[in-house]
Amino acid sequence: MGFKASILTLYPDMFPGHLGHALAGRALERGDWSLEAVQIRDFAEDKHRSVDDTPSGGGAGMVLKPDVLARAIDSIADDGRPRLLMSPRGCPLTQERVRALGAGEGVVIVCGRFEGVDQRVIDARQLEEVSVGDYILSGGEPAALTLLDAVVRILPGVMGNQLSGVHESFEGGLLEHPQYTRPQIFEGMEIPQILMSGNHAAIEKWRHEQAVVLTRERRPDLLPIQPVKK
Amino acid sequence: MGFKASILTLYPDMFPGHLGHALAGRALERGDWSLEAVQIRDFAEDKHRSVDDTPSGGGAGMVLKPDVLARAIDSIADDGRPRLLMSPRGCPLTQERVRALGAGEGVVIVCGRFEGVDQRVIDARQLEEVSVGDYILSGGEPAALTLLDAVVRILPGVMGNQLSGVHESFEGGLLEHPQYTRPQIFEGMEIPQILMSGNHAAIEKWRHEQAVVLTRERRPDLLPIQPVKK
Repeated sequence: MGFKASILTLYPDMFPGHLGHALAGRALERGDWSLEAVQIRDFAEDKHRSVDDTPSGGGAGMVLKPDVLARAIDSIADDGRPRLLMSPRGCPLTQERVRALGAGEGVVIVCGRFEGVDQRVIDARQLEEVSVGDYILSGGEPAALTLLDAVVRILPGVMGNQLSGVHESFEGGLLEHPQYTRPQIFEGMEIPQILMSGNHAAIEKWRHEQAVVLTRERRPDLLPIQPVKK
Repeated sequence: MGFKASILTLYPDMFPGHLGHALAGRALERGDWSLEAVQIRDFAEDKHRSVDDTPSGGGAGMVLKPDVLARAIDSIADDGRPRLLMSPRGCPLTQERVRALGAGEGVVIVCGRFEGVDQRVIDARQLEEVSVGDYILSGGEPAALTLLDAVVRILPGVMGNQLSGVHESFEGGLLEHPQYTRPQIFEGMEIPQILMSGNHAAIEKWRHEQAVVLTRERRPDLLPIQPVKK
């Protein structure tokens, strides 16, 4: 049994989306992981199959009804997988969290739409709100696909040996150093001499220095010691 | 002429992906925005159609060749649209940047794969590295789809009046307050009394307080004054 993703959504046709292609898609075909998309609307009980209603206390937009969503969640066997709600209010997704999810048996993901989800179902079903970034998406679906891409990528066998030994951004707490490849001269620009030296210790040192400079410039928040503001 | 997105990718079939559904998909059909996915491999010139090569100086993975990518980029008319490279090394995407992109005429997005992209083509074609979050994806494609979802959502006409007046996370610098809707009682839990009071000033005040508490708990980094660490 591989990693199992269950998605609760009003747009099941959005899945597997881009995860049906390339390495994730081949891993899905092989059964290294599985995906089920559950239509929340199938759990509406009124004749209009309503899934949302106006916000209590007023305001624009519509809120996902707690009773309908609870029934949809309860239709998925509670086998201990984490239950996430993709939401810009959530804790930001990190590579550490991605690794923890990938080491587990799977995930249940609720995709919100409209103005939000009734707080009572978030509490009652212990949904963990997770955000993929500080921007607003049309719904939880693009966020769920992004999270799953990050997780599926690190599942055993998915990337074969392409992942082994790869030094990646964040893995060492730094952004990745610049990369170069052939041709030796591109539009008059040469590959830095040091990289052609064959001196592995010097190359490693240069790459680390470049990574530190880049991280300081772009993402000082990632550095363990914050630079002093003047 | 609506917003125009041009994507450079090794997986053009991943597009429009989830953007072909729901509001973004209908807006695409109406021509409110357009999408072209350009296959980078079509610009390889050797008999194997190579797009990547080993990293100069050694290391795992493969690096996108600068010459091939430059030709692919140059195949797209330079009409002043920003050129982004989706990369975990980039500046984090914010809602402010999403709004700026949505106010423009479109965007050119390079999707990296493998270990990275040769730094010389990033410099020579002035690619702006943008990150959707602090995690590693299989490539730039899921990131590009996420960014486009955020941008397309705010284009004129795409969401109709669903967006008007909506109070959203980040728009006021705070995470959004909890939401509730009918039924009045869900699994024994009632909607907070204040929301049923009809006192709009009191409701607004309560919502603001809730938003501040939530932001302080989950995202103190978003608050203008950082809490004192003890």
